[in-house]
Amino acid sequence: MRSYRKELWFNVPTRRAFINITRQVEDCLRESGVTEGLALVNAMHITASVFINDDESGLHQDYEEFLEALAPHEPVSRYKHNLTGEDNGDAHIKRQIMGREVVVAITKGKLDFGPWEQIFYGEFDGGRRKRVLVKIIGD
Amino acid sequence: MRSYRKELWFNVPTRRAFINITRQVEDCLRESGVTEGLALVNAMHITASVFINDDESGLHQDYEEFLEALAPHEPVSRYKHNLTGEDNGDAHIKRQIMGREVVVAITKGKLDFGPWEQIFYGEFDGGRRKRVLVKIIGD
Amino acid sequence: MRSYRKELWFNVPTRRAFINITRQVEDCLRESGVTEGLALVNAMHITASVFINDDESGLHQDYEEFLEALAPHEPVSRYKHNLTGEDNGDAHIKRQIMGREVVVAITKGKLDFGPWEQIFYGEFDGGRRKRVLVKIIGD
Repeated sequence: MRSYRKELWFNVPTRRAFINITRQVEDCLRESGVTEGLALVNAMHITASVFINDDESGLHQDYEEFLEALAPHEPVSRYKHNLTGEDNGDAHIKRQIMGREVVVAITKGKLDFGPWEQIFYGEFDGGRRKRVLVKIIGD
Repeated sequence: MRSYRKELWFNVPTRRAFINITRQVEDCLRESGVTEGLALVNAMHITASVFINDDESGLHQDYEEFLEALAPHEPVSRYKHNLTGEDNGDAHIKRQIMGREVVVAITKGKLDFGPWEQIFYGEFDGGRRKRVLVKIIGD
Repeated sequence: MRSYRKELWFNVPTRRAFINITRQVEDCLRESGVTEGLALVNAMHITASVFINDDESGLHQDYEEFLEALAPHEPVSRYKHNLTGEDNGDAHIKRQIMGREVVVAITKGKLDFGPWEQIFYGEFDGGRRKRVLVKIIGD
């Protein structure tokens, strides 16, 4: 069994953003040499997500509005977590809704995707360097 | 390491539905010959889910009502995604809440499940042919 | 390929709780002897979650309040599932939001985690014995 590991680094200037990382994960897959197996792609930080959906800017605005309505950033006093001195209580909730990770099948050396599947990094507490882990196992 | 791949196809006549696919995934597992490993089951479309929960019709109505309250289908003008000409902005949100995929342990040639675990395909934008991917790796 | 399986048992006296199970999963990893691979950790019950986030009590209160606002336990007549005689309709919804499972990379014999990642068992319908499955595959 082969295994491969890479960290992808991000420094998002805004508090929140969705970044398409499909090409970077494809590059990892090529480097790994794995042709049949599974790829795990996960946020290494607990105020960020990795998820699969459509690369369409209107949809991303819909996600932003939906998440902000469910768990608004302000007032920051709304969250007991922020009594620790943080202001990212909302980001921990947004990340749970959008998910930590995706697992993607690898078939014949490619990410085995439907027609519109794209992998995104979802940042909910930006302004600093954060990481995504790509772990690939297989033959 | 063995690997196995199969697509399950669906054409749900209604906009939304939950379909129990446990038997089909068990058939895949038998075909694969894998006795120890992992099975990934994921929607290949971004307006559908695969999830594990109970096969109880009242619960499925509760999920339907919960999701429709959080992200109503109408008015379709509510979603910026629908400015593209689509009317499925709600379905992209419902799918994120219910999830894209499940990963199931395989032990002694069986899906390693608790007493009530069943796998469902969740359709949120039906009326056309859509797919689920079953990928199994192991020995 | 090596594979390893263990059940972790819980009997939470309260209806809802979040329990840090990171040490127990690390013990499983040591027992497994796997140094490169994937660990699947999933609730075997459909009214419980396994998720990764921060071990901070204020955050856990925020999750509790967020989930109870989205899918309140009472009135139990709110959920069609409870017409079966159950009173845990809310717990099936809370579990979907928080997720069934996590998949964690194993690198050099360790859970390959970012600085704050911890694994939690999320109980939403306690008062009885319930299980988490740890399945590890790799070399």
